[in-house]
Amino acid sequence: MERHRPTLDAAVEAVRVRGHHTAYPESPSRSVYGEDAAPVGQAAFEARLGADFPLDGPGDRGRVATERSPYGPVLGVTYPRADADALVAASTRALASWRRTSPDDRAAVAVEILDRLNRRSFEMAHAVQHTTGQSFVMAFQAGGPHAQDRGLEAVACAYDMIGRYAGESRWEKPQRRGGGLVMAKRYTARGRGVGLVIGCNTFPTWNSYPALFANLVTGNTTIVKPHPGAVLPLALTVAVARDVLTEAGLDPDVVLLAAEDPDDRVAADLALRPEVRIVDFTGSTAFGDWLEANARQAFVSTEKAGVNTVVVDSTAAYRPMLANLAHSLSLYSGQMCTSPQNLFVPSGGIETDEGRKGPDEFAADLGAAVADLVGDPARLAGVLGAVVGDGVLARVDAVAELGETVLAPTAPAHPEFPDAAVRTPAIVRLTADRRDVYGREHFGPISFVITARDTDESLRLLRETITESGAITASVYSTSEDVLARAEDAALDAGVNLSENLTRGVFVNQSAAFSDYHGTGANPAATASLTDPRFVAGRFDLVQSRRHA
Amino acid sequence: MERHRPTLDAAVEAVRVRGHHTAYPESPSRSVYGEDAAPVGQAAFEARLGADFPLDGPGDRGRVATERSPYGPVLGVTYPRADADALVAASTRALASWRRTSPDDRAAVAVEILDRLNRRSFEMAHAVQHTTGQSFVMAFQAGGPHAQDRGLEAVACAYDMIGRYAGESRWEKPQRRGGGLVMAKRYTARGRGVGLVIGCNTFPTWNSYPALFANLVTGNTTIVKPHPGAVLPLALTVAVARDVLTEAGLDPDVVLLAAEDPDDRVAADLALRPEVRIVDFTGSTAFGDWLEANARQAFVSTEKAGVNTVVVDSTAAYRPMLANLAHSLSLYSGQMCTSPQNLFVPSGGIETDEGRKGPDEFAADLGAAVADLVGDPARLAGVLGAVVGDGVLARVDAVAELGETVLAPTAPAHPEFPDAAVRTPAIVRLTADRRDVYGREHFGPISFVITARDTDESLRLLRETITESGAITASVYSTSEDVLARAEDAALDAGVNLSENLTRGVFVNQSAAFSDYHGTGANPAATASLTDPRFVAGRFDLVQSRRHA
Repeated sequence: MERHRPTLDAAVEAVRVRGHHTAYPESPSRSVYGEDAAPVGQAAFEARLGADFPLDGPGDRGRVATERSPYGPVLGVTYPRADADALVAASTRALASWRRTSPDDRAAVAVEILDRLNRRSFEMAHAVQHTTGQSFVMAFQAGGPHAQDRGLEAVACAYDMIGRYAGESRWEKPQRRGGGLVMAKRYTARGRGVGLVIGCNTFPTWNSYPALFANLVTGNTTIVKPHPGAVLPLALTVAVARDVLTEAGLDPDVVLLAAEDPDDRVAADLALRPEVRIVDFTGSTAFGDWLEANARQAFVSTEKAGVNTVVVDSTAAYRPMLANLAHSLSLYSGQMCTSPQNLFVPSGGIETDEGRKGPDEFAADLGAAVADLVGDPARLAGVLGAVVGDGVLARVDAVAELGETVLAPTAPAHPEFPDAAVRTPAIVRLTADRRDVYGREHFGPISFVITARDTDESLRLLRETITESGAITASVYSTSEDVLARAEDAALDAGVNLSENLTRGVFVNQSAAFSDYHGTGANPAATASLTDPRFVAGRFDLVQSRRHA
Repeated sequence: MERHRPTLDAAVEAVRVRGHHTAYPESPSRSVYGEDAAPVGQAAFEARLGADFPLDGPGDRGRVATERSPYGPVLGVTYPRADADALVAASTRALASWRRTSPDDRAAVAVEILDRLNRRSFEMAHAVQHTTGQSFVMAFQAGGPHAQDRGLEAVACAYDMIGRYAGESRWEKPQRRGGGLVMAKRYTARGRGVGLVIGCNTFPTWNSYPALFANLVTGNTTIVKPHPGAVLPLALTVAVARDVLTEAGLDPDVVLLAAEDPDDRVAADLALRPEVRIVDFTGSTAFGDWLEANARQAFVSTEKAGVNTVVVDSTAAYRPMLANLAHSLSLYSGQMCTSPQNLFVPSGGIETDEGRKGPDEFAADLGAAVADLVGDPARLAGVLGAVVGDGVLARVDAVAELGETVLAPTAPAHPEFPDAAVRTPAIVRLTADRRDVYGREHFGPISFVITARDTDESLRLLRETITESGAITASVYSTSEDVLARAEDAALDAGVNLSENLTRGVFVNQSAAFSDYHGTGANPAATASLTDPRFVAGRFDLVQSRRHA
């Protein structure tokens, strides 16, 4: 703990102040990570391909290999196939001792795991790139340091909350006849039980770490169930965690991997076990809703589909706005849960520093900005990455059925991986009455420029569609403080985080650990924010003892 | 706010330190509350009897009068009969402006309500006495200052948590090429919606205030649905709240009363409304379970039945132990959710400062201690109070069917109220195999002395019965630190708060605001503690906005 105390204290302070903070540098540069880090990481990744992933654990159901890179190659890594009974039994056995490990020791273990993951960031970057389809730099950042920072943020939140409400006290009640009635009291933050973290295909580490690390610090064991398409990043994580636990003389089964054949449906099985008291899930609305309705014995946090919204009213920086939006639409081919989908513009057009722009002109200019961004093959690879899954490809390729295509998707060749599935963003024009189309999520590089009567209608539609279908992000462009205030009002009612007039190097789809909340829990897209007090507080109970002192 | 700042700051500090703290003196003495407070309060209460309770509010479904004092008289106070549609509509209307009232202003309103309630403590004491059957002094304390302190504790928890996670920040990310990327961010704690607080018959204010005041500070409106047998204490509370809101220029419908005819089933109706996003309930396991299963749109907190347990292993203070236990069993005729029910003693007896006592002797001595305590007519009224409800009377009167009666209940005359339903505690001997009897709650003055093989079996049965049927309290007597440690271990596993070797003026059924948690949420007796972080964190979302600075 002594070694990790400065990291932890700084993180706790950062969570409170919510300014810029990072413990893990986001730049994949040699000056930060060392001369050898990149080639060593790449070699480590390549050595895993086609090989068995060494991971001991309970159960004996053979091995599974389920991953194919969106860039082409089959990974061929094999993992132990999850045996639900054995996993639950092992996790429950590990719970008794983990609950009795002090919060300080649990936090130290968590930070040590994160530090080691950080040193493996290059290996992780390749693993994330070739499971999610993210570009290498994005995979490095989002899958490595940014995910590690989010994990540390969860450690800090949990550690801070436990420290604030648990511990010891001396209660001394003055008595009328002099002397005091004195009690010594102890409050223990008691983990609720076995946690189940169900990872997604697109952000296997970033979306799982807050839950995994909050679970650890609050005294819960965790079974990590990766998406069959993105096992390796979480297998690496679990292996590192088990190493740290073992070296600390603790039960490695505090963290377990549940890799499965897609037909095993092990997530649904595990989620209903009475021992499983916490479930975290990122993925489809259908399965998220099912978990909420059925895993009644557990504290369930889900992140599901949504209709991220941009309201364009006016701007004093037309080109920077277009560039910012183009980047947001293109980044990882719109496959972020934070990517904008619905852009509302008033029928009368928008006032800009380049004069009034009608909806048609805005749509065309936005399309041109996107085409310009992704037209350069060098940038294409870094911005778009590859498309994950046939569902996204099918949706993009059928986009013309949705409305008038302003920008048609293309399938350019990837400069490095000839078999990569690459698509440039599609932009479709819709009128406000086509809520049947834009009122639901079209996951992937598909967005809509929707003509509203005026900005009032745009804000009303933001409020209504997000209240109904949820959203992780919303964004507004206006030169009017009055419009911005009304947008904030609408966002507050809809319960969505709002970015205003982003034109510089901050994008609506990016949230910064220790500062930005991700999601709110106030609309159907997610039940909680990462990492707000509810997300952490649901993971432990306070159990007290007292005696005369 | 300025006026209430010292009260609030001290309360926030107290919640962290968890030592002795109180803002509202518990002594009903003239030196504290003034010469006239007692007669003025009594007169105010008497003026309400047989009269219409003046409370404006939405709806027009006539009036209801449902209260009869456990001490005899029908109260005859009439209240507006709840109109669920009108209440939900009014509460939802009030929500928009209340959400936009600042946390500081909301906290100030909450503290002002509590301060005014404190000044009405004598009137409240009579109202609580004649609805719950508590003795006057207990009704004054538990219904007045102790409830107010619990309310203030909830205000402090909520205010502290909002202050810690919401507010504003400046985010400045250093850029490689110099200069910083600077964002101004704002985080708003957004109330989840309409809250429903369902009161109980025995502690209408104490069990409702944490939810009501946590709701207020976190930006939720609240409909207070009292038990038909204990309306007046909550009607007084709601009336005071509405006065404060109105005087502050705010919508009084932020707090509404839902008095009902018992056949109206308005609680079940309200709990399922989509606008109702928070439900708090104290009462039967059946209805609590129903709420948890059905009010899926809401954050539901329940407190239900349990089997509070005492493990007697050994003691160095036999008589003080007996006196302490006798008091705990007798207080309010065992009608506290914290009253002990199951006392486990080893078959070989217990070592004491008066030599070894076998189970029979312990049971007889405990019976004698209880008989001695309640045998004095002067103390009888102050300790026992009156029995609330025919269900309790029926259970007590049939106690001989449960096992061998060590102490038979009696029905002494109340010195002041000839029609009061008074019962002294019954104690029944059972063997450990009669889990069919002691494994469920027998609400009222009924307890069991249960012979276990040894203390190990006692602890095993504590662990098992509480895991299965829940408990709000547990208690252990032992001179062995090893046994105490094992008892703490068992209590931690069962998720129950443990009192150890209580012999002086602290009783297992009493919990101190700002210091003791009440319940844990870790066993079936309750989903949360009052007032732990989960209890508060479930009541708001964090919604963020950000822009370039």
